Order: sequence, then C-alpha cells, then structure tokens
Amino acid sequence: MKKTPPLHGIIAYPITPLRDDGSLDLPLLAALVERMVSAGVHGIAPLGSTGILPYLTDDEREAVTETALRQVAGRVPTLVGVSSLTTARAIHHARFAERAGATAVMVLPMSYWKLTDAEILTHVDAIARAIGIPIAIYNNPATAGVDLTPELIARLLEIPNVTMVKESTGDVNRMHRLVQLCGDDVAFYNGSNPLALAAFAAGARGWCTAAPHLIPALNLALHDAITRGDLDAARRAFHAQLPLLRFMKEHGLPRVIAAGLTLTGTPVGPLRAPLLPLPERHVAELRRLLVDLGALPA
Amino acid sequence: MKKTPPLHGIIAYPITPLRDDGSLDLPLLAALVERMVSAGVHGIAPLGSTGILPYLTDDEREAVTETALRQVAGRVPTLVGVSSLTTARAIHHARFAERAGATAVMVLPMSYWKLTDAEILTHVDAIARAIGIPIAIYNNPATAGVDLTPELIARLLEIPNVTMVKESTGDVNRMHRLVQLCGDDVAFYNGSNPLALAAFAAGARGWCTAAPHLIPALNLALHDAITRGDLDAARRAFHAQLPLLRFMKEHGLPRVIAAGLTLTGTPVGPLRAPLLPLPERHVAELRRLLVDLGALPA
Amino acid sequence: MKKTPPLHGIIAYPITPLRDDGSLDLPLLAALVERMVSAGVHGIAPLGSTGILPYLTDDEREAVTETALRQVAGRVPTLVGVSSLTTARAIHHARFAERAGATAVMVLPMSYWKLTDAEILTHVDAIARAIGIPIAIYNNPATAGVDLTPELIARLLEIPNVTMVKESTGDVNRMHRLVQLCGDDVAFYNGSNPLALAAFAAGARGWCTAAPHLIPALNLALHDAITRGDLDAARRAFHAQLPLLRFMKEHGLPRVIAAGLTLTGTPVGPLRAPLLPLPERHVAELRRLLVDLGALPA
Amino acid sequence: MKKTPPLHGIIAYPITPLRDDGSLDLPLLAALVERMVSAGVHGIAPLGSTGILPYLTDDEREAVTETALRQVAGRVPTLVGVSSLTTARAIHHARFAERAGATAVMVLPMSYWKLTDAEILTHVDAIARAIGIPIAIYNNPATAGVDLTPELIARLLEIPNVTMVKESTGDVNRMHRLVQLCGDDVAFYNGSNPLALAAFAAGARGWCTAAPHLIPALNLALHDAITRGDLDAARRAFHAQLPLLRFMKEHGLPRVIAAGLTLTGTPVGPLRAPLLPLPERHVAELRRLLVDLGALPA
Repeated sequence: MKKTPPLHGIIAYPITPLRDDGSLDLPLLAALVERMVSAGVHGIAPLGSTGILPYLTDDEREAVTETALRQVAGRVPTLVGVSSLTTARAIHHARFAERAGATAVMVLPMSYWKLTDAEILTHVDAIARAIGIPIAIYNNPATAGVDLTPELIARLLEIPNVTMVKESTGDVNRMHRLVQLCGDDVAFYNGSNPLALAAFAAGARGWCTAAPHLIPALNLALHDAITRGDLDAARRAFHAQLPLLRFMKEHGLPRVIAAGLTLTGTPVGPLRAPLLPLPERHVAELRRLLVDLGALPA
Repeated sequence: MKKTPPLHGIIAYPITPLRDDGSLDLPLLAALVERMVSAGVHGIAPLGSTGILPYLTDDEREAVTETALRQVAGRVPTLVGVSSLTTARAIHHARFAERAGATAVMVLPMSYWKLTDAEILTHVDAIARAIGIPIAIYNNPATAGVDLTPELIARLLEIPNVTMVKESTGDVNRMHRLVQLCGDDVAFYNGSNPLALAAFAAGARGWCTAAPHLIPALNLALHDAITRGDLDAARRAFHAQLPLLRFMKEHGLPRVIAAGLTLTGTPVGPLRAPLLPLPERHVAELRRLLVDLGALPA
Repeated sequence: MKKTPPLHGIIAYPITPLRDDGSLDLPLLAALVERMVSAGVHGIAPLGSTGILPYLTDDEREAVTETALRQVAGRVPTLVGVSSLTTARAIHHARFAERAGATAVMVLPMSYWKLTDAEILTHVDAIARAIGIPIAIYNNPATAGVDLTPELIARLLEIPNVTMVKESTGDVNRMHRLVQLCGDDVAFYNGSNPLALAAFAAGARGWCTAAPHLIPALNLALHDAITRGDLDAARRAFHAQLPLLRFMKEHGLPRVIAAGLTLTGTPVGPLRAPLLPLPERHVAELRRLLVDLGALPA
Repeated sequence: MKKTPPLHGIIAYPITPLRDDGSLDLPLLAALVERMVSAGVHGIAPLGSTGILPYLTDDEREAVTETALRQVAGRVPTLVGVSSLTTARAIHHARFAERAGATAVMVLPMSYWKLTDAEILTHVDAIARAIGIPIAIYNNPATAGVDLTPELIARLLEIPNVTMVKESTGDVNRMHRLVQLCGDDVAFYNGSNPLALAAFAAGARGWCTAAPHLIPALNLALHDAITRGDLDAARRAFHAQLPLLRFMKEHGLPRVIAAGLTLTGTPVGPLRAPLLPLPERHVAELRRLLVDLGALPA
C-alpha cells in the first residue's frame, strides 16, 4: 500500500457552503464538487480546513461526507477529513467515512493541551486500527496548534495504513527531511498554497488546495508542467497564480473562497460565526487579482 | 461594575475527573471542589483549561457546571468557562451558566482559522449581549491559538459586562501595558502559574490556578503576603512553590494535577484520549517535588 | 565575593556622545556622567549597549573608559563594558579597564556564528582568568544574537570572579529560574527598562538603565520605594515612567537618549552611521512624553 | 547591469585558515582557493561568513582579499565580503576590494542595535556610491541579527549598482516573493545549503556555498542537472548531499569545513576564539557522512 498511494495531482478542497439561516447548503456543495471534478482535478477532499471541519456538528460532518462522496461517485479518489479533538470522535468519523465509501481519510492531530509524541502516536494508531482504508496524516501547526516533526511523521508512517502525509508548514525543508528519513517513495503532499512549486520540485505527489474553486486550469497547468519535466513552464504557471495563492493564505481560505465564488457568479452564504466575510477592502483587492487572472471580466 | 469585579485572590480551577469507563465522576468533582473551598480559596472556576473544557460534550459541560455550582453553594464566587469554537455554542453555554447561578463566565476566543480583531470583538459582544452577568475575557495563545494584544483587550473591556481579564501569556509586560491603556482600576488576573509573584506585584486582582488541588496553603500564603505588603515573605512563599508551578506548566495541568491527586491519596481515573497520564518517570519527579513541599511524607 | 557584589540600585549607562565630525566628544561624556552621579545614581556603566560599544574602535573604547572613570573618581562603583567578538580583544579591554580602575567589567558573549555553551564558558573563563576584578555576565539576545539560558548562567557563575548577572531578555521568569538554580543570594540585575518593577519585585539588586540621562529622580524613586517595601508607591513611580521606558525600548536607546538630551537642552551630535537620529515624528512623540513627565515645559 | 549579473552557478566560499599561533595561513588559503577553481566552481567569494569575516582585523581582511584574488587571477568572477558594523569601515573595505580587482562585493547589513529600513538603505547607498563595481546584498538574519524583507530588498535593488541578492533565510517563499516584486530577471542567489534544490527550482542564479571544500563534484552535479532541466537527476544529486548540507548548517560552517578538510588530508589549524573546533563526537559523525559520500575511504 505504501508504494501506490491512492491520491496524486491536484486534490481539491471544497468549502462547506451555508444558507443564510446558517444551515448547510448541500445542493450548492454538490454543485461545487461537480464543477471541480468536471474541471479535471485529480481528487476531492471534503471536510478539510477549507471545509471548516472543526466548526461543524457531528451531524453536519456526516451530511457533508455523504453529499460529497455521492456527487464524486467514484470518478476520482476522495480524502475525507475526520479530525477531532478527542480520539473517540475521530474514530467515529473515520468509520463513518469508510462506510460512506471514502478512498482515504485525513487525520490532523488537533490540540488544546499540547500533545506529546506518545499521545499523537496512540491517537493515530487507534484511528488506524478502527478502519481498513488508508490514512493521510496532516501537519498544520498554524491551525492545529501542534507541530509534527519529520521524525514523528516517520514514526506515524510505520502504522500500516498510514500511507500519506500532508505537510502544511510551508517549509520545503520539512519535505526534504522526510524523504531523507523515509526514502524516495514516501508519499507526501503539499498543503501550503504558496509552496506549490517548491513542493513539486521536491517530489510531492500532490497539491492539496482550495484554489480549484477559482482557478482550476492554472492549478492543473502547474501540475502538468511538472509532470512533463518542464521547469520553466512550471515556474511561469506558478508565478501567474502566486499573487492569488498568497492572498488566500493571508486572509484565510474560507473567507477568500466564499468571496471569490460570489464575485465569479456563485453566491455563497455567510460563514459560521465567529468567522466573518472577507472585509470589503479585501474583496476589492481580490477582484483585481481575479481580473488579472482572467477569472473575472475587467 | 468595572470598579468592583466579583473575583479576587486565589481562584481555584478544578479538574474534571473521569471514571475508568471515561464518563464523568461527578461525586469526585464535588469532593475536589469542597476540599478547595474548605481550604480557603477565594473563588472556584469550573471548566477551565484544567477542567479540559474543549474535550467535553455539551451535556458533560452542563453537568460539570451544575455539580460545581451546587457544591460551592454561594460560599465563594464562581467563574464558569463557556468558550466554544462557534459563537452559537458559546452563547448556549453562557446562558446555561447564568441560569445555573454562576457569578461570572470566562470566554476564551478559540481559533482554528486565525480570528481577526473584528471577529473576536463580534464574538465576545454577541456572548455579552446574551447574558446579564460579568464576563472575564481570557487570553491564552498557547492553547487557544490566538493572541489578544493589550490593545484589543482594552477594546473588549469597553463592552459593558466584560469587566475582567485573565492573562496567561506569562509575560508581565502585558499586564503593565494593560494598566497603561485602561487605568489603575482594570481588573486583571494571572493565569500563568510561574508568573504568580510578578503578576501580584504588577497589581493583579487574583491568581487563576489549579495548584490548590495540591498546595492550597502555599498559594494562599503568597496572596496573604502580598495583601499585607510583605514583599520578602511573598518572595519566600513564591520560591517555595515555584518548582511545582514550573513542573505543572511544563507537563500540562490535567496530567500533573491528576497524578498529584493520585499520589496524595485521591485516586483520579484516566484522562480523556488523546491525553495520556503523566509518564512514570515524571510521576517520580512529581513525588519528589511534593515530598519537598511537605504535601507527601518522604 | 559572591555575597557582596559591588553594585546595586540605579546603575546609569552613559551614551557615547560624538561631535559633528564623528569623533568622540569626551568633555560632554564627562559632563553627562557628572550630571548622573550628582543626581544620585548608585553606579556608572560606560560602554554598554547605550554607549554604542560595538561601533567604537579600540582607541575610542579606551578613551571612553578613562574619561568616565576619571570623572566618577570613585564616588560610585563603575562597571565597564569590555565585550568583543573575539576572546583576544575582550581580554585586552578587560585588562585595560582593570588598570584604569574599574570596579567591575561587564561581558556580553557576542555572536556572529552562534556560540555553543562550551565556547561561551571558555570565552568567559579566559577573560576572568586575565583579570582580578569582578565580572558581570550580560545576557541580551536581542543585540548579541545568543541567548544564555539560566542553566548556562548558573555555570558561568561558578567561575570565581563572575559574581553578577545582567538579564535583558525582558522575561521575569528567567530571574525566578536563576534564583531557583543559584539560591537567594545570586546577584542579578535587570537590563530591560519596562521590566523594572517586576525585576525589583523578583529580587533584582539593581536596574541597569540609560534613563537617568532624562528622568533620574523617577528612576531613583522606584528604587527607593522598593527598598522601603512600599509596593504601592513603587507601582505608582513605575507607571509614571513606563511610557518613556517603552518608548526607549521601541526606538533604541542611543537614538532616544540623544534626542531627549537635545530636547532638554544638552545638544548631542550625530549617531555613528549606520545609526541615524530619531526620526522627526518620533521626536515629537518623545517631546510629549517628556512634557508629561515634567522633564520639559509644556 | 541588472540583466547580466556577473555571477552564476556554484559560488565557493573559502574558509580563512589559521596557523597554530592564530595568524592567517595565507598559503593554505591560496591552495584551498586553487583546489576549488580547479574543481570547476563558477565563482570564489572570500570573506563570507565561512571566511569568519567579522572575527578578522582590518589588516587580515585585506590580506585575505589580496591572496584570494591573486590566486583566482581572473579565471572565475569573485565576490568579496566587505560587511562591517559601521558604514565607514564597510566603505573602506569596499574600496579596497575594488582596487584589488574584485568582480563584485557582498554587503550584509549587520546589526547590534536593530537597524531601521531607513538606516539600511542609507548604509547600502553610501557604500554603493563609494565604488564602481556591483554589489550583492546579503540577507542572513541568523548571523546578522537583522532581517531584510523582500519589500526592503526590492528597494535596495533600485540603487544602481546593487544588482544581486543573496538570500540565506532558508525560506524559499522569500525568493518567490522577490520575483513577484522585482520581476523574472531579478538575480538572486541561495545561501542556505539545505535549500539548494528548491532555490534552483525557484530560479536562483547561483548557490553560495562552502561545500566545494569537500564535495565539489556533487555541488556541480546538482547545478548541471538543473541547467539541463533534468529535475529527477537534480533531486538525486541533492538528496545524496543533503545529509552533509544539513550537518554543515547544524554545526556551523567554519567548524565543519575545518574538520572536514583535516579528515580528508588537509590539516587546518585552530578556529579563532571564542570559536572552538568541532567536538570529537561530531567529527566522528562527519567522518561517516564523508565516507558515505565517497569523500573518504571507509
């Protein structure tokens, strides 16, 4: 299983759209998933950070999982976020995702109290034992409050069905170190949008990103150039989209994607409080970025 | 209300004890609260970080609130943690605490996505409008993932019933800055155990701490010395307990308090996974610290 | 020697004033030293960070040492900075200071390449062996690029004539930790101006500061209140001067002291390039602060 | 001049070897330079961090410059470090380097007092006006204590003869940002050894490194693969040398290069105090790394 991880390329992260009353807008979720699959992305990952996983109730998480997987309908592999603060809830959601037909699940060890390495290993191992599908371990200290060192990730990869790593620190040195520790065939994925070029150059199998909501063709063009070994073309495709990628990182994915979809003709409802919509002055900046990219008429 | 905040002195934070099957041990919670009230602490604060608030279900939170307040029975003021990742759940818990008779509630703006200042202000304001009792705003970037600057705290204190601040950064400069911004009568409390002496010297109204589970007399002695204006005695009381305070900070309050209670004759069940008990080698170190403090026979 | 360190109280750091042609203005240096001694400070420390030690040539450093010590003329103890990037030059300057009559010397282990603990110990030990007067070890990672942990400082204090520690991290926890490691009689001094109150509360023997150039009476009032055990008075004296102390830290001591002296009637020449004078907009802010403190007419 | 910077490829940084009595070993310096030129490096950069620039006297710096340039004799371009804490000394050394025949000089704005942007701009501008050859601006916060943002670097590049940037933060995002700010033709160079692959992928013109003292063929192989557009070969060459590059970064270039040269048959004398030789246990680790790379017999 280690040798042939089920995911590669552009792995798209749908937002979780809400109605004006704050409830889930599942038909819109299905439409957004459909649009990205049609655009040619190589995977769909509901309930990531972009999907505001931690802000949803258990019931809502299950509804998002079912809706997204039903819409994908096996056309591309799926990676469902199942992270929870407690091990018990993470296991519950991992089992639910497996039953619903997920290709794999993603586990971010979240912290309130800083977790020790032993606690993280025990937590992930318990989830892994509860399911039969592959796990992608996810490192994102900026949101999760805990940083998985490459050394710890290497130990997590010894758990049989932990076969993938999503790295979102934005430090390419972490990826090089991981290859040094685990060998060339370690399947790592990049989750920091502005690091997309460097991560592919470092050998990343894929790029986990919400950007295909707005610029799928550019995201795919970067991956295609890398696959062809055309570093110059890759650099051009990357620099074209870098201003938007940096903007997304600076202002937060749910805020930017919701505003961008609304700008490009797909109105999205409110974010879940305490999250607020992108402020107007930043919406104006986003509009300029999208015009520059041809995603909006001037 | 600003002038006479309802809390001062040693504000004790009970752990939330569990049975071996992982369910709440409410009788033990009541006993632990009783013991600290009897020891003379000046306030009780259930559902803090020590009380593993974020790891509990809504039902469990309500049960802890009711149990603790019933046991206190008005003998000392109470401060109930109501923090939640979403505004809606925080309001729910704040209302519950008010109905249950809490003196005040504590709000820690928690983050997954980094919150903007506007989001934090809107979040706290919404909670404040929903209740009629005072709010203590809580800054603890190490657990919450968001850091409230003194400038932002000063703005939060303009909300009518936000009348107290608990500062847990461990940086006394934050407290001095707060006094500079808000005036001498700003009611701030220290939540970083090793900062207890410096915070009282800076004018803190109280010390929010789980240490009274193990060494209430020493905690009270520090406060008494400060109240008497005896800085030398305060320094001696502080240095006597500093090794334990540092140990608590280094290894995490729930782990250390649970282990310390077990060592001193009050067995406490497991922590909630992924949290694990204090490792054996650290239990041995804790035993030595407690022996040195006279809390355990040699 | 450990028990009775030669310095205590307000230890004043003279700037090193320059003429318009960039050469040392030694008569002005003597006048500034005289003014602070007359104001009642308890020690004089030429060639500190304020004295722009690292920007001076060897000859200039020697001239400053001689001028300052001659002016003090034994009325208060002196602490001469002798830090250099190489051990050889530090030894040279330490010997010079001893011959010139310094009470003690201050050593900041400076780094370009990060120094290992072994390198710092060897460096300080070599300087200590070369002289017969006491050494104050100085920790200031913000300027020196290397951070001395309390554990390393404790080891440095085992060198016979290393008898004092100046701590400038601005973290009072470092001081508490030092007492825990070295015992109550460890002679530590505070070098972070905004930490003056907390450091005295923690037991600091003295406050190393350039502020007596501008507000000697307030600096001394804080120390007097602490000596009398009057914490309330100490807090009042501290809060009165805190805005200026924070301004000094934010904009850099040489820039602020030079501008403040000029504002208060003692024109000081340029700083040594690349250092530039305090920008005009900040001079205006400084003027307001000095007016508020009564150091300038409104 | 902006379009055709005079340096590219593998730019080798010689150490500054000392004799047992602590004086410069200029013949050995010449031999080390010769060896790297003969191995095919594309540039020589005396008096970098590796060359322990800040630990040398003015006379020593001049002797190193003359020796290195004489040995290179125009076969490859040269980049001479002229950084000094004061503007006056930096100008002195820049002029000396120009007279000695340097192709370009490198300027690291060093700090004791944190420099403002205005101070850095004025400092570099003054040096640039004093000479007629190109300047490479150097950002290395870990050694210099000041961090040049991409925005500030973009402003420095507006000074006519500032035509190159050496980035040593180890964060590839800085390089991407620089391209975004300055355009595709900005000439940036990587100074963080473990970032060599990512930097070339990002478009770096060259790699500034001391590694050619030990593994010139591998360094050149990485550059050759990138030049050919063979990303797979580049990745292989990079991963082969990464363990040594990481070791160099962890233990400091002068310590590692001196130990490595001694191991491989070119004894190098002591480092300048306070720098100490690489400790024995790390020498053993270095030996294993060099054996693995074929640079030493097993």
